[in-house]
Amino acid sequence: VPEPTHPRLLPTLPGDAYTDPAWFAAEQSAIFARRFVLVGRSDEIGAPGDFITAGVAAESVIVVRRADGEAVGFLNVCRHRGARMLLEPSGSCGKVIRCPYHSWTYSLDGTLQGAPNLRDWALGEERQELALQRVAVHEEHGFLWVRIAGERSFADDIGRQLDVRLGDASMLAAWGIDRLRTGRRIVYDVAANWKLIVENFMECYHCTTIHPELVGVIPAFRNGLGSQSFGTGYGSELGPQTEGFTVDGRPGLPTIPTVPDEDTRRYYGMTLTPSALLSLVGDHVIAHRIEPIAVDRSRVVCDWLFEPETLASSRDIGPTVELFDRVNRQDFDACERCQLGAASRAFAHGGVLVPAEHNLNAFYDEVRDALAATTRPEETSR
Amino acid sequence: VPEPTHPRLLPTLPGDAYTDPAWFAAEQSAIFARRFVLVGRSDEIGAPGDFITAGVAAESVIVVRRADGEAVGFLNVCRHRGARMLLEPSGSCGKVIRCPYHSWTYSLDGTLQGAPNLRDWALGEERQELALQRVAVHEEHGFLWVRIAGERSFADDIGRQLDVRLGDASMLAAWGIDRLRTGRRIVYDVAANWKLIVENFMECYHCTTIHPELVGVIPAFRNGLGSQSFGTGYGSELGPQTEGFTVDGRPGLPTIPTVPDEDTRRYYGMTLTPSALLSLVGDHVIAHRIEPIAVDRSRVVCDWLFEPETLASSRDIGPTVELFDRVNRQDFDACERCQLGAASRAFAHGGVLVPAEHNLNAFYDEVRDALAATTRPEETSR
Amino acid sequence: VPEPTHPRLLPTLPGDAYTDPAWFAAEQSAIFARRFVLVGRSDEIGAPGDFITAGVAAESVIVVRRADGEAVGFLNVCRHRGARMLLEPSGSCGKVIRCPYHSWTYSLDGTLQGAPNLRDWALGEERQELALQRVAVHEEHGFLWVRIAGERSFADDIGRQLDVRLGDASMLAAWGIDRLRTGRRIVYDVAANWKLIVENFMECYHCTTIHPELVGVIPAFRNGLGSQSFGTGYGSELGPQTEGFTVDGRPGLPTIPTVPDEDTRRYYGMTLTPSALLSLVGDHVIAHRIEPIAVDRSRVVCDWLFEPETLASSRDIGPTVELFDRVNRQDFDACERCQLGAASRAFAHGGVLVPAEHNLNAFYDEVRDALAATTRPEETSR
Repeated sequence: VPEPTHPRLLPTLPGDAYTDPAWFAAEQSAIFARRFVLVGRSDEIGAPGDFITAGVAAESVIVVRRADGEAVGFLNVCRHRGARMLLEPSGSCGKVIRCPYHSWTYSLDGTLQGAPNLRDWALGEERQELALQRVAVHEEHGFLWVRIAGERSFADDIGRQLDVRLGDASMLAAWGIDRLRTGRRIVYDVAANWKLIVENFMECYHCTTIHPELVGVIPAFRNGLGSQSFGTGYGSELGPQTEGFTVDGRPGLPTIPTVPDEDTRRYYGMTLTPSALLSLVGDHVIAHRIEPIAVDRSRVVCDWLFEPETLASSRDIGPTVELFDRVNRQDFDACERCQLGAASRAFAHGGVLVPAEHNLNAFYDEVRDALAATTRPEETSR
Repeated sequence: VPEPTHPRLLPTLPGDAYTDPAWFAAEQSAIFARRFVLVGRSDEIGAPGDFITAGVAAESVIVVRRADGEAVGFLNVCRHRGARMLLEPSGSCGKVIRCPYHSWTYSLDGTLQGAPNLRDWALGEERQELALQRVAVHEEHGFLWVRIAGERSFADDIGRQLDVRLGDASMLAAWGIDRLRTGRRIVYDVAANWKLIVENFMECYHCTTIHPELVGVIPAFRNGLGSQSFGTGYGSELGPQTEGFTVDGRPGLPTIPTVPDEDTRRYYGMTLTPSALLSLVGDHVIAHRIEPIAVDRSRVVCDWLFEPETLASSRDIGPTVELFDRVNRQDFDACERCQLGAASRAFAHGGVLVPAEHNLNAFYDEVRDALAATTRPEETSR
Repeated sequence: VPEPTHPRLLPTLPGDAYTDPAWFAAEQSAIFARRFVLVGRSDEIGAPGDFITAGVAAESVIVVRRADGEAVGFLNVCRHRGARMLLEPSGSCGKVIRCPYHSWTYSLDGTLQGAPNLRDWALGEERQELALQRVAVHEEHGFLWVRIAGERSFADDIGRQLDVRLGDASMLAAWGIDRLRTGRRIVYDVAANWKLIVENFMECYHCTTIHPELVGVIPAFRNGLGSQSFGTGYGSELGPQTEGFTVDGRPGLPTIPTVPDEDTRRYYGMTLTPSALLSLVGDHVIAHRIEPIAVDRSRVVCDWLFEPETLASSRDIGPTVELFDRVNRQDFDACERCQLGAASRAFAHGGVLVPAEHNLNAFYDEVRDALAATTRPEETSR
């Protein structure tokens, strides 16, 4: 067995992984349809009948709040003639979901409730057979997650990732994220494959080069290692001169009261594959969700979450939002450069990971393993 | 043999029929190239040399009026180097069709008439071998129809459909459509597969839900059955309070004098597959033609036809045009919703037809049969 | 063996050659990646560190001037994570090419010079293994040419074509093109396959029809034969009333002093496949380069080159530039018509070449031969 020539270098995925529409379609089916995908915040559907729609695995999905308080989800397709029923990103549908084409109505458990003008057609077992197609919804920490198919539990999927990252998923409770409210949402249209955005968030080897503001507030990032690079439970310290996690290090906002003292000046970043990114600091939380649109295009929705009291006060969240908004734009520019290069014959076999990026290899394994397992028939969750 | 679970439900076509580019290409070749396709009105090419161009089965087709009064058609491609010769939707080409690239000229029977600068090259049998490729043109009721390939006669194609719809195609003569003139043409760009537009026109189960103005003038549509639902010869009555087929039921225009008394207050809608829709009322006629652009996009040209005397008068056609213009926009919005839903896994096996829509099944059969027969070699009509 | 029915007609390529993305991809790999492709002018990279980027065979290529004066080329892809390093069409990169994602730097011979933040990772043999991927650059007559793969020499490729066209490639020296400077660059976006643009330039059978200004200054073009139609060494004479190669025949600019007297009133056009077009007249030179973007779209960059003294003077180059700018627009309109026609069933087997166009057949052979030879594995030139 010959010695590897670059013992400290690992290969990346090959270029096709970022440019071939067949790779993209396989990932949508093998990964995005079978995993819990972050789609929004619980408080977006506060009252019964409130709904959001979101794109998951090439589907439009409805998540709606029922009268009993449960959030339930459906594919946004009428079983009659296939119309997309709800076009708006959010709203209220009252007590039923009504298709605007022929006025078929579905109760909020998905069963067909009414089909007008059918004097000769008493609804019998069709109520269930023509029910809307359910998707699994999980609600925790004020986040809404959807799983379209398969049986994998939330605990085994996102929960396990939180355990690995934080030592114990329950540590997240200290940030009281279910109590926080969205102070700002910014949507980015990125000309890059979704995996490039995930990979970028997983490493900080680029931080010194492209994130002057970020390494200004966390000088430790200058060594090329991010908070995820050190393994379980590690949070990166703000610099001694840094007063807050803001664009210029000026003081931020009042600390979330339940955050332990030792974490009020730390940054915890974590990738919750396939498409959620979570950032915890003492006075706010940032949640990204990446929606793959095409093999070379993604939509990223970034929410900045704050204490309700902070938002109700006259405090200025601007310098806080501006820090990570700049980081986002810097990152997405870099991802777009990688998308342009991925089609080159120079990248046909991919590139290399330096030691500071070796944690990306676990993500590559996850993608490869999921695609290798795609021969399993897809079962729809009910 | 088990009992069908939905004896009153029939399946629609599967989702692929509306989303797969290969389905679309097969339909273009198996259906649109072999059937008579409505391309315009005879009076658009009133004088010798007048032409229109139209898109049929992914071809640009020229229909031109010859000096002997006959309308003839050609593929809009110079036989020399393949240039599209006429780019405008209509105009006059004089006595020859001239390619603007190298000035090859073709007489209006398609034969090559001249090729300049060919001092050493006397045109011999090339005149015929390099003739423009003919397409069949049929002119009737003031409409121009084109068939690119195959041998199916107009009578067997459109004529037979008129027989089925009206009992006897000759009944159409009462509207004197050849004498009518276009008072308004509106072109719609619809983000939906052409079949969704056909299906929508074939059923009125959606009328109550999306067409308030239409069911206002024809209250019978509230029962979900359109004029095509009742079989041969049926026309739907205007409501007792309706004075005209206008957006608000106000009086319309003078009745076409040759329309029988019993039809002056009736609406006859008819689908003339693959792509023409015809609507007859007492005082005007509406003709739609659907031009498929891509699997998920269509162009619809809608002409409102009136008595020349009506157009010459100071009568306002506005309220008449506005009724079906609104109906069109309502319908096409619904079709676009179905296009969005067709790609969903919830529609992979299609949806269902309720009894009021069972007439759509004949259209599905027609499409399926045509695609099943595509192994036949295509013969160009001359 | 039956007699050919059109002994004076040759077939063109079939329609697929202009519409099938698989043809396009094969040509990019078999032709554009293996031939010398014109990418710019030497004076665009006058000083050490000056670079241009250009699109060649679906690659972004960097051509950069080294301190030793040599122009060298690389694929514009960082070997680390695949980022496209230089986005601007031209600029200066100093002494190293630096990837803006993680600050990997490459010296101007392509070797990896530095990778920051790698305290544990001393660069060893990786310097060469992770070097930028080289492309061959040839510089002659002030033009920069790039060959991505294969071994074919410039002399065997472009040089041989110049020999055939001019009798002896060295004849070109009389125009002193390396001394000329770009007075105007115009970029055209053309909705046509690259081959249609090449074919158009190779024949003048269309000149009378679409180029009134051009046949005004060179009346000989009215016979349908261009300067390339007569074989080796032929230049077309300006008309007796023509004072200069300008839009209206008015006097042009001072003659390039080294041009032989017998050539000061001649036009030499030449196609240097795959994608360069060169035009020589007494007082200027025009260079086109065609960059294929997609099977149905090309970008054409046209440079008008003049004596530096002429550009430094108050002479007006406008009427000179306007002549060929008009010719370009007339030609590209014609090419776009052919693109529209190429998808027709009437062009499935292509069209015909008349005798005045028979020289195009050599181009067709070249394309066909290159595609037939694509089973060879591609070797990257170093």
